[in-house]
Amino acid sequence: MKNFDINEDPHRRYNPLINEWVLVSPHRSKRPWQGQNETVTSDALPEYDPTCYLCPGNVRANGMVNPDYESSFVFENDFAALKQEEIAFEENKNQTFFRAKPERGISRVVCFSPKHNLTLPEMPAEAIENIIHTWQKEYIDLGNVDYINHVQIFENKGSVMGCSNPHPHGQIWAQSSLPTEVEKTQSNLKAYFDKHNKTLLEDYVKEELNLNERIVIENDHFVALVPFWAIWPYETMVVSKRNVNKITDFTEMEVTDFAVILKQLTTKYDNLFETTFPYSSGIHQSPTDGELHPEWHFHMHFYPPLLRSATVKKFMVGYEMMGESQRDITPEKSAEILKNQSNVHYKILT
Amino acid sequence: MKNFDINEDPHRRYNPLINEWVLVSPHRSKRPWQGQNETVTSDALPEYDPTCYLCPGNVRANGMVNPDYESSFVFENDFAALKQEEIAFEENKNQTFFRAKPERGISRVVCFSPKHNLTLPEMPAEAIENIIHTWQKEYIDLGNVDYINHVQIFENKGSVMGCSNPHPHGQIWAQSSLPTEVEKTQSNLKAYFDKHNKTLLEDYVKEELNLNERIVIENDHFVALVPFWAIWPYETMVVSKRNVNKITDFTEMEVTDFAVILKQLTTKYDNLFETTFPYSSGIHQSPTDGELHPEWHFHMHFYPPLLRSATVKKFMVGYEMMGESQRDITPEKSAEILKNQSNVHYKILT
Ligand SMILES: O=P(O)(O)O[C@H]1O[C@H](CO)[C@@H](O)[C@H](O)[C@H]1O
Ligand SMILES: O=P(O)(O)O[C@H]1O[C@H](CO)[C@@H](O)[C@H](O)[C@H]1O
Repeated sequence: MKNFDINEDPHRRYNPLINEWVLVSPHRSKRPWQGQNETVTSDALPEYDPTCYLCPGNVRANGMVNPDYESSFVFENDFAALKQEEIAFEENKNQTFFRAKPERGISRVVCFSPKHNLTLPEMPAEAIENIIHTWQKEYIDLGNVDYINHVQIFENKGSVMGCSNPHPHGQIWAQSSLPTEVEKTQSNLKAYFDKHNKTLLEDYVKEELNLNERIVIENDHFVALVPFWAIWPYETMVVSKRNVNKITDFTEMEVTDFAVILKQLTTKYDNLFETTFPYSSGIHQSPTDGELHPEWHFHMHFYPPLLRSATVKKFMVGYEMMGESQRDITPEKSAEILKNQSNVHYKILT
Repeated sequence: MKNFDINEDPHRRYNPLINEWVLVSPHRSKRPWQGQNETVTSDALPEYDPTCYLCPGNVRANGMVNPDYESSFVFENDFAALKQEEIAFEENKNQTFFRAKPERGISRVVCFSPKHNLTLPEMPAEAIENIIHTWQKEYIDLGNVDYINHVQIFENKGSVMGCSNPHPHGQIWAQSSLPTEVEKTQSNLKAYFDKHNKTLLEDYVKEELNLNERIVIENDHFVALVPFWAIWPYETMVVSKRNVNKITDFTEMEVTDFAVILKQLTTKYDNLFETTFPYSSGIHQSPTDGELHPEWHFHMHFYPPLLRSATVKKFMVGYEMMGESQRDITPEKSAEILKNQSNVHYKILT
C-alpha cells in the first residue's frame, strides 16, 4: 500500500478555528479550464472621478456632500443592512422552526484615501497606518454604543468580490449579536484557552514559525501565513505574534509593523498575476460586549478567489456548498509562490 | 418603541439544519446596483456539438469514446478530486494544528441527456424520471463499495456556478468521510429525532404546509419551498412529504412526483428572469455507512445566485465570509414571486 504523501494524495485537513474540514486534491491542479473567465479592467483610473460617490467633494445618493478629506473618511452606509432603531420584540421560546429576532446595528463605509485610483499596496505604509488608526477609532466609537457587541471590519476588493466602486474603501458592520462565523471561532478559541491558558493562535503561530512551510511574510510583530486549513487558493491570515486581544491594544510599533505587512502582502498578491488582486478581507478580534475575552487573538483573514490567472477563479459551488470546501493547490505550495513574489509593486517595476 | 415587523425590519433567522443564523435586511432590496454584471449567452446551442466531451460518440480528454447513449450516461470524472487508491496512514493523535487524513473516493459525471442543448426544465418529465433512476442506481452502486460512506449527488448549472459545459449533466462525489455540511446536518437531525422520534423535516414540512407562506409547489408526495432560513435570494428545498430516508426508498409514484416537481421548479426558475437559471443543487439523504439513520429525511437543496435579473447576482463576500450570510429579500417574498411564475417554460410561450 502506498504511503500517505500530503503533497500528492487527496486528503482532508482540519480547521481548529471553526471545527470544519476542507478537502485537498493536490493532483487536481492539472485540470484544464474551459469555464468562465472573469473580466479584468486595466483602464487607468483618474485620481478624481466626478461620478464617484466616495471622492472628496462629491454628492452621495442621499444628497450629502463628502468633505474635502485628506486621508481617510468614514460615513454611515446609505444602504445599510442594519438599522439603529430599537424594535420591541418578545421571543416565543417554543419555536423550533421559525426563530427570528430583530437585529440592531450600524454600518459604516471607510474611505482609505481621497485618491480614486489608489489601492492598499500602492499607498505608502504611513497612509496604511492612518487607516489602522481609523479602524481603532471606529472599534472604540462603535464598541462603546451600549447595544453593539461586535464590530466587523472588512473590505471587499474588486468587482468579482461584489465591490461596486474601485475607490479604495472598506466597511464596518457593527451589531448587537455575534455573527455565526465569529461565534464558532470564539467557542473554539475559548475551549483552547480554558484548557491551555494560552490563546490557540499564539501556539499555532509559534509552531508555524518553527516549521516555516507556510510563512509568507514575517516581521517583528506580525506573521502573514497560508493557514494549514486554508480553503481559498491564496488565502492568508495575518496574525500578531504577541497575544493581542483587539486592534486598540496595538503598540505604536505594532501599528507600524501591521501597516508594513499589509502593504507587502497586498503587493505580493498584485504581483502574482500582475493584476489588482481581488479579495475579501476582515478582522477577527474580541467582541465589544463588555466581557473580558482572553481567548481572542487578533487576526485578519484574506480570502482571494483567483486560482490560475487574473481571470480564472476557484468556484465554491455544488460539492463545496453541499459537502465541504475543496481546494486543488496545497497551502504549502501557495505559500511558497506568494513568498517568492517581489515586495515591489509590478506597476512600479514596469 | 416600534413593534417588530418581519417584512420590514432587519433581523436574524435560525437554521435548525446546520445550527447557524442568517441576517435578513428586507429594506435593503431598494439599494441601487452599480457592480458587476454577469454575461448571459443567449446563443442557440446545437443538439450535437462535435467539440463537447459529453456528447454521444465524442472523445474525452483521456482518449475514451462516449457511447451513443440514448438517455443518461455515467462515467468516472477524468479530473477527479478524489482517488480510489488506498493509502497507508497513521494518525498522530497529539496533533492539534496540523490534522490531515487521506481521503478515498470516486467522482462520476452523470449526463442527463444525449442532447447538448437541453436543460432539466425543457425535458419531458419521463426523461427526468430516468435521471432519478440513474441517481438511485449510482447511490446503490457507490454506496455498496466498502469504503464509501457518503454519496453526494449534485449539479452545477451555468457558467456563473463554475460549470464549464452547457451539456446537461451533474456529478456524484462519493467518499469515505461525511463531508462537513452533511455532518453538521446529521447531528442536528439526530438530536431532533432522538427527542421527538420523528424527523425534523417531517414536522417542518407539516408546519410549512399549514402556514402556506413559503410553499412554491406542492404535489401528492413532494413540496418545494423557500426555507424560513434560506440564504440565497431564490433558494429552495424540495422535501418528500413521507419520511423517506434515501432516494432508493422512493415508490414509483414518488419517482414520478419528484420528476414533476423538479421540472416545475426549474421551469419557474427559468421563467423568473427569462434565462437559463444558474444554480447548484444537491441531495442530502442517509449516508451509506451501513448504519440505520432514521433521522435522515430526503431533501434536495437549490442554491441559485441570481438576485435582481439575469445578470445581477448576490455576492456572498466580506461580511458574509467573516460574519454570516446576509439576504435582502425575505424568503416569503421570494416564495410568492416563484409561486406566481408559470409552469410553462418561457421558450415555449414565446
Ligand atoms: O468538476 P468541475 O465541474 O470541473 O468543477 C466545478 O465543480 C466542482 C465541484 O463543485 C468545483 O470544485 C469546481 O471549483 C467547479 O469549477
Ligand atoms: O455593501 P456593498 O459593497 O454594496 O455590497 C457588497 O458587500 C456586502 C457585504 O459583504 C454584501 O452583502 C453584498 O452582497 C456585496 O455586493
